[in-house]
Amino acid sequence: MIFGDWTILVLVLDLAGTFVFALAGAMAGVRRELDFFGVLVLSLVTATAGGVARDVLIGAVPPAALQDWRYVATALAAGLVTFLWYPVIDRLTTPVRMFDAAGLALFAVAGAEKALAYGIDPLLAPLLGMLTGIGGGMLRDILLADIPAVLRSELYAIAALIGAAIVVAGAEWHWPSAPTAIAGAVVCFVLRMLAIRYDWHLPRAWSGRGGPPKA
Amino acid sequence: MIFGDWTILVLVLDLAGTFVFALAGAMAGVRRELDFFGVLVLSLVTATAGGVARDVLIGAVPPAALQDWRYVATALAAGLVTFLWYPVIDRLTTPVRMFDAAGLALFAVAGAEKALAYGIDPLLAPLLGMLTGIGGGMLRDILLADIPAVLRSELYAIAALIGAAIVVAGAEWHWPSAPTAIAGAVVCFVLRMLAIRYDWHLPRAWSGRGGPPKA
Amino acid sequence: MIFGDWTILVLVLDLAGTFVFALAGAMAGVRRELDFFGVLVLSLVTATAGGVARDVLIGAVPPAALQDWRYVATALAAGLVTFLWYPVIDRLTTPVRMFDAAGLALFAVAGAEKALAYGIDPLLAPLLGMLTGIGGGMLRDILLADIPAVLRSELYAIAALIGAAIVVAGAEWHWPSAPTAIAGAVVCFVLRMLAIRYDWHLPRAWSGRGGPPKA
Repeated sequence: MIFGDWTILVLVLDLAGTFVFALAGAMAGVRRELDFFGVLVLSLVTATAGGVARDVLIGAVPPAALQDWRYVATALAAGLVTFLWYPVIDRLTTPVRMFDAAGLALFAVAGAEKALAYGIDPLLAPLLGMLTGIGGGMLRDILLADIPAVLRSELYAIAALIGAAIVVAGAEWHWPSAPTAIAGAVVCFVLRMLAIRYDWHLPRAWSGRGGPPKA
Repeated sequence: MIFGDWTILVLVLDLAGTFVFALAGAMAGVRRELDFFGVLVLSLVTATAGGVARDVLIGAVPPAALQDWRYVATALAAGLVTFLWYPVIDRLTTPVRMFDAAGLALFAVAGAEKALAYGIDPLLAPLLGMLTGIGGGMLRDILLADIPAVLRSELYAIAALIGAAIVVAGAEWHWPSAPTAIAGAVVCFVLRMLAIRYDWHLPRAWSGRGGPPKA
Repeated sequence: MIFGDWTILVLVLDLAGTFVFALAGAMAGVRRELDFFGVLVLSLVTATAGGVARDVLIGAVPPAALQDWRYVATALAAGLVTFLWYPVIDRLTTPVRMFDAAGLALFAVAGAEKALAYGIDPLLAPLLGMLTGIGGGMLRDILLADIPAVLRSELYAIAALIGAAIVVAGAEWHWPSAPTAIAGAVVCFVLRMLAIRYDWHLPRAWSGRGGPPKA
C-alpha cells in the first residue's frame, strides 16, 4: 500500500473528494457565464457547503473547512483548472462522474461519523451524512437560481443516505469501524454508479394536473 | 381536558404544527414535479428550517429538530401522505389553511420564548419568533427558485411578529406566562385567519415604473 | 476630530454602512414589487446577513446583529425611508454607490479582524472579511431568485478580499492596528470606486458554447 498511514489516506481521499466536487461546481459556473470570481465561489461552495452546514448544525464551529486551508486551496485549484481548461474537462464526463460518486460516498460516510461523534441521535445522523454529501451541490444550484437537481431527478441523495445509514448502524451495533466505513462508502458508490448506468429515478407524485406523472 | 400534562399538550401541538407545515411543503414539491425524495426534503425543510435557523442564531445547537427524531418522523410522514394522496389533500384547502395559521401561531410563540430563554435582547426576540414561523416556508420557496411568498403578498409574517411580540412583552412585564403565550398565539391565529378571510395585504411601494402600485 | 472616541467613530461608521447596505436591499425589493414587509426584510437581510454568516461560522453566537438592537433599527429605518421615497433615492445613484463602497470597505476590514480575534487561520480570515462584505447582497439576490450579481459581473468582492487581506497581513506581521485597518479600508474603497469609474470586470471563461466569451 502506497500510504503507510490511515490518517493520510483519509486526508488524501477527502481532498480528492473536495477537488472533484469543486470541479462540478466550477463547471456549472462556467456554463452559466459567471466571471472568474463567480466560478471560484461556486467551486468553493460546492466543495465545502455540505460539510460546513453539517458542522454548524452539530455545533462543530469553526467548521473543518475554516480550520485547514488545504480544503479551500484544493477547491480553488479545481476552480482555476476548470476556468482555464473548461472544454477539456467538459469532455471527461465519465471519470468526473465516477469521482463525483466517490466524493459523495466519502462525504456521506465521514459526515455520519462526525455527527455521531458530536452526539447526534443515531436515527438522525444519517441525514447529516447525506447533507454533507449533497449540501454543496444544493447551494450551488440555489446560487444559480435553479431548483437543486438532487430534488428533482437523479437517484443521488438516497445513495448517500444508505451509505451513511450503514455507518451509523455499524456504530450502534459495534461493528469494527474501518470495514464498516468502507462498506458504507462502497454501497453508496455502487448504488450511485448503477443509478447512472441504468438511469434509475425515483417516482414523482401525480399532481392531478396534466397527464399522469412522468417517470 | 384530554391531556393531564401541559408538556404533553405543547408537544402534541408542536408536532401538529410540524405536520401541517410539512404538508404545505410537500404540496409545493408535488406541484413543481419534484421526485419522491424532493417532496420529502421539502416537507422536512418547510417544517423545521425556521426552528433550525433560530437555534443556530441563538446558539442552541444541535437544533431541537436534531435532538428529537419525532419532529423529523412527523415531517416525513406528512410528506409521504402528500405524495400518496395529493389530490385529496389539495381539496382540503380550508382546514389546511386553518392548521397552517395554528402552526404559525405556535411556532412564533414558542420561538420567541426560546429566544428569550437564550438571552436575546427583548427588542429582537420577536424577530426570532417570526423567523421560527416563516423561515421554513421561505427556504421552501428558495429551494423552488421562487421569491418567498411571504415577501410579496399575504399578511402572514406580521401576524407572527405580533404574536411573538405579545409573548416578549409579557415576559418583560412579568405577566403570567401560560395566559400570555395563549394570548400571543390566539392573536396571531386570528389575525392570520382574518387576513385570509378579508384578503388583507400590505401596501407596495411605488417604484415609479409603470403605473401606480397595485394594492 | 469630531468624535473624541475611536469606539464611537467605529460604531457610527458601522451603522452608516448598515444603513447604506439596507438602502440597496430595500431598493431591490421595491423594484421587484415586494410589499412593505418584503422591503423591510430585504433591508435587514442585505445589511446584516454577511456579518451574521461570519458570526455563525466563527462561533460568535448570538451574532452581533442580535446583540445590539441599533443595527436592526438602522436597517429598518433605511427600509422605511426607501419605501416612502423610492423615486428620490433612486436618483441618488452616485452618493449611494460611494457609500456602498465605503460600507463594503468597512465590513470587510471589521469582518477580517473579528475572524482573527476568534482564532481563524490567517490564510482563511480574508475570506470571512469578504463574506462579511458581500454575504448580505448575495442573500438579497437569492431571496429575489436571482443569481447573485457579485458572481457574474462587477469587480466588487475582490476589492473586499484585498482590503481584508491587508488587515490580516498587518496582524500577522504586527503592523500598528489602526493604520493597517485604515489602509485596508482605503484600498478596498478606492479599488471599488475605480472599478465603477473605469468599468472594470473580471474575465469570463469560454464555455465553448456560442462565440468567444464576453469581456
